[in-house]
Amino acid sequence: MPIFQKSAELTVQTEGRKLYDITQLVKEWLSLFPLQEGLLTLYIRHTSASLVIQENDDPEVLRDMERFFNQLVPQGNPLFKHTAEGPDDMPAHIRAALTAVSLSIPINHGALLLGTWQGIFLYEHRSAMHTRVISCHLIGA
Amino acid sequence: MPIFQKSAELTVQTEGRKLYDITQLVKEWLSLFPLQEGLLTLYIRHTSASLVIQENDDPEVLRDMERFFNQLVPQGNPLFKHTAEGPDDMPAHIRAALTAVSLSIPINHGALLLGTWQGIFLYEHRSAMHTRVISCHLIGA
Amino acid sequence: MPIFQKSAELTVQTEGRKLYDITQLVKEWLSLFPLQEGLLTLYIRHTSASLVIQENDDPEVLRDMERFFNQLVPQGNPLFKHTAEGPDDMPAHIRAALTAVSLSIPINHGALLLGTWQGIFLYEHRSAMHTRVISCHLIGA
Repeated sequence: MPIFQKSAELTVQTEGRKLYDITQLVKEWLSLFPLQEGLLTLYIRHTSASLVIQENDDPEVLRDMERFFNQLVPQGNPLFKHTAEGPDDMPAHIRAALTAVSLSIPINHGALLLGTWQGIFLYEHRSAMHTRVISCHLIGA
Repeated sequence: MPIFQKSAELTVQTEGRKLYDITQLVKEWLSLFPLQEGLLTLYIRHTSASLVIQENDDPEVLRDMERFFNQLVPQGNPLFKHTAEGPDDMPAHIRAALTAVSLSIPINHGALLLGTWQGIFLYEHRSAMHTRVISCHLIGA
Repeated sequence: MPIFQKSAELTVQTEGRKLYDITQLVKEWLSLFPLQEGLLTLYIRHTSASLVIQENDDPEVLRDMERFFNQLVPQGNPLFKHTAEGPDDMPAHIRAALTAVSLSIPINHGALLLGTWQGIFLYEHRSAMHTRVISCHLIGA
């Protein structure tokens, strides 16, 4: 089979600062194509939300992550001058820079090569509800 | 159109620690090719500069980023033994590890899928002037 | 030559928290294929180990990195509730999120485009010995 590519946008509604498991959403899109070997790239089109591969088993891990990032990049840090969009905006930009905007995951034998304990998460860094868009690119055969 | 690939090196002159917007430079290179769908990968060939997708609107965001990273990875931290190349060198290596060395951005309908508020930035982590090289790889059709 | 792809898994035995240089291992795999231009993607299938491009010259850089991450994400931080797998487990997940799970490096003129001072490292974040698997995907011609 010759190499082909596919693209899509996945939309996720968020409700405040935390990690949202999007593994199933991604796998459902992938299942549309008869790909045996290739590369999936996810790209989030925002600067105050990001992508993270994280442990998919104990929900306490996700809460510990959030507690840590909240401590590492505190709201109200007097360093921050960009405050017009709210006290959570500048920390959101920094948290996004510290995690990932793009992730590339290989596919082999028809399966996305996530490790056993790996989930794909959208990390929302703003307090309010948001609609987040992830661009997906798939190439392979 | 069959899938093709293109490569290039983009060179950026930096003048000290801050974020440099390279979005236009990248788009100008992309505009050379009649690509409708594909994937652009940027890779920076240094360990004391990095790549970041960041807000492209308020310059204060970029200054807040720099203030934050300066506080997070302070020069003169007595932990650091690698000081022969100057007090800004080891913090630069850590700041590079905390941000990104490679970024992959999908292209669709002939457009790079940056979000409305996203710019592509080279983050220079050293104090002195440097010539930085970014390798670009484009694949698609 | 038409565009082709190759996949593999590289296995690395680790012995505690530090950076392991895997540049040669990666280059040996790449040398099996007559690729002139393309893209190599590395993906680590774990949530308590990660990938980092770092300085390949002074080993003190690697020790400074470890000292810094140990200070940034301390074991025993009372924030952490996920402690059943040991005090090094939750810090490992956070350290992995702060560095990289996937890296994409272009190839041109038959060479992986690492900078002069860049090595590819597996960053082990757990104290005990582990077997770590990195999925590799190569596309090009």
